[in-house]
Amino acid sequence: MSEAQLAERLLAGETRALARAIRMVEDRDPSIASLLRQVRERSGQARVIGVTGPPGSGKSTLCDQIIQRWRAGGHLVGVIAVDPSSPFTGGAILGDRVRMVRHTLDPGVFIRSMAARGHLGGLAAAAREAVRLIDASGRERTLLETVGVGQSELEVMQTADTTIVVTTPSSGDAVQIIKAGILEIADIHVVSKSDRPDARSTISDLKQMLALGISLDSSSAWRPPVVATSSMKGEGFEELVSALEKHKAFLETSEAGRARSRKIAEFRMLKTAEDLLRIRFQERSAGRVRALADRLVSREINPYAAGEQLIEGIGA
Amino acid sequence: MSEAQLAERLLAGETRALARAIRMVEDRDPSIASLLRQVRERSGQARVIGVTGPPGSGKSTLCDQIIQRWRAGGHLVGVIAVDPSSPFTGGAILGDRVRMVRHTLDPGVFIRSMAARGHLGGLAAAAREAVRLIDASGRERTLLETVGVGQSELEVMQTADTTIVVTTPSSGDAVQIIKAGILEIADIHVVSKSDRPDARSTISDLKQMLALGISLDSSSAWRPPVVATSSMKGEGFEELVSALEKHKAFLETSEAGRARSRKIAEFRMLKTAEDLLRIRFQERSAGRVRALADRLVSREINPYAAGEQLIEGIGA
Repeated sequence: MSEAQLAERLLAGETRALARAIRMVEDRDPSIASLLRQVRERSGQARVIGVTGPPGSGKSTLCDQIIQRWRAGGHLVGVIAVDPSSPFTGGAILGDRVRMVRHTLDPGVFIRSMAARGHLGGLAAAAREAVRLIDASGRERTLLETVGVGQSELEVMQTADTTIVVTTPSSGDAVQIIKAGILEIADIHVVSKSDRPDARSTISDLKQMLALGISLDSSSAWRPPVVATSSMKGEGFEELVSALEKHKAFLETSEAGRARSRKIAEFRMLKTAEDLLRIRFQERSAGRVRALADRLVSREINPYAAGEQLIEGIGA
Repeated sequence: MSEAQLAERLLAGETRALARAIRMVEDRDPSIASLLRQVRERSGQARVIGVTGPPGSGKSTLCDQIIQRWRAGGHLVGVIAVDPSSPFTGGAILGDRVRMVRHTLDPGVFIRSMAARGHLGGLAAAAREAVRLIDASGRERTLLETVGVGQSELEVMQTADTTIVVTTPSSGDAVQIIKAGILEIADIHVVSKSDRPDARSTISDLKQMLALGISLDSSSAWRPPVVATSSMKGEGFEELVSALEKHKAFLETSEAGRARSRKIAEFRMLKTAEDLLRIRFQERSAGRVRALADRLVSREINPYAAGEQLIEGIGA
């Protein structure tokens, strides 16, 4: 399949074309840049929902429930599940995504899990590119699920229009959220497993922290709701989907929401430019990297000086 | 102070010059690129130890103990404590670093905590630059502490020669480490709070996982030790410092170790180049960013197309 054909089929929404394009992202295929260029006029339409939280907090169940409701509403859905893995060996340890698997039989749902496989730009860059491709393929709603609550997840989440942070009811979990710095990125808080007896105190802890304004820009008119869900009892998911709709309305109709939307659009623009710049740099510098690496080994040059020479050499 | 003076004082090891240079990194001062260029011949000497683990796992206590022993050995020490914070508001919520504070009175120890303040390149890039500056200032040993165990911490840790992963003895914590993908980056495992009754099972879980080879490259000759520490009893820290020395010897004398060192040096080279490329891009594109941002707001252009135009425009 030629690149032009691939672009055409991707824009037509073909699942196989989308899967192939995302594989190109994962394989760091240099032609991904020109593919993205070919489909760029059709990107930027989809709504991206980020879902983050510690391992085992029930993110997959939550995604499953959201997908089900979106599909009932007739929407085409994309899911990127970001898997952490070692930057050195490139191996991925898949998280528990069993629950989402049932949707793979539905052609209206595209699910892909991505692992860090030595992307120079990091997993965040690869996830951004995958989201663009899903967007260009006409899937109107994308879930971007990340395991973990670290600094890098924050970067992945910056790609999202709306970010859901999932907490479990266990002592101190809410405090961990503050410490990990993710309280402030949540547009919607979910306390999962709310059937557990200790859920009540987690919910009130979170609400109290939010009331203290730790997470609130004084300029922001959006007050992140705390939604309690229980997959055992099947409760809270309607409320969650409705909170997503409310946040969408906020982004589109309020002044603070439009300012936020503008910030997200600017971030996407800058990251797109940065990602392309890195791809170009990799193409141009490959030969010089090898030569300089040899000099690193013989300790003729230190890594920082070598890095500077690399740039000077390609005249970027 | 002129830039040349700043570079000179930095190279002379002056604390105030170093503090000022790191502030320039945090303020995204464009002249940091040329400052780094001026000191580049003197970088690449220091040994960098990464310390990562979940919040509350006692990383600061551990750093405190390592610092104390290094200082007793006459080494100059730098510490960068990476604080997670919101990418949107730029606010930082400082972690618990009280224990390290006592070292701030010692001129042989330079401690700085860094927060994500909208660094386009992410906190990892800022941390890398800070480590280079500390290195250039003649501090021979640097601790790089990050809170959290997410994907981005992995990137921060790639800057380190040796990575310590701290786990607490609580049920499931070892499993979380696998899930978060950080098992594979650990050169040394620490189980902190080993005076607790549940420590024994965490230690054996970890050892079992390591024995299963989940984390081991078949080519690697290094078997990450599991060190149990207790700050309450003051135990395990000698063993930890000795494990650090053993890993240093491994990197310098064994074939697998030298291969690993080469990988780290190449990573530093590539990231240095990438960071500089980004700084240059920011300088050249500032005016165009504003113009395109206006077109984003009026929806004349989508963010991805705008990002591509940004690159085309500067002819990088």
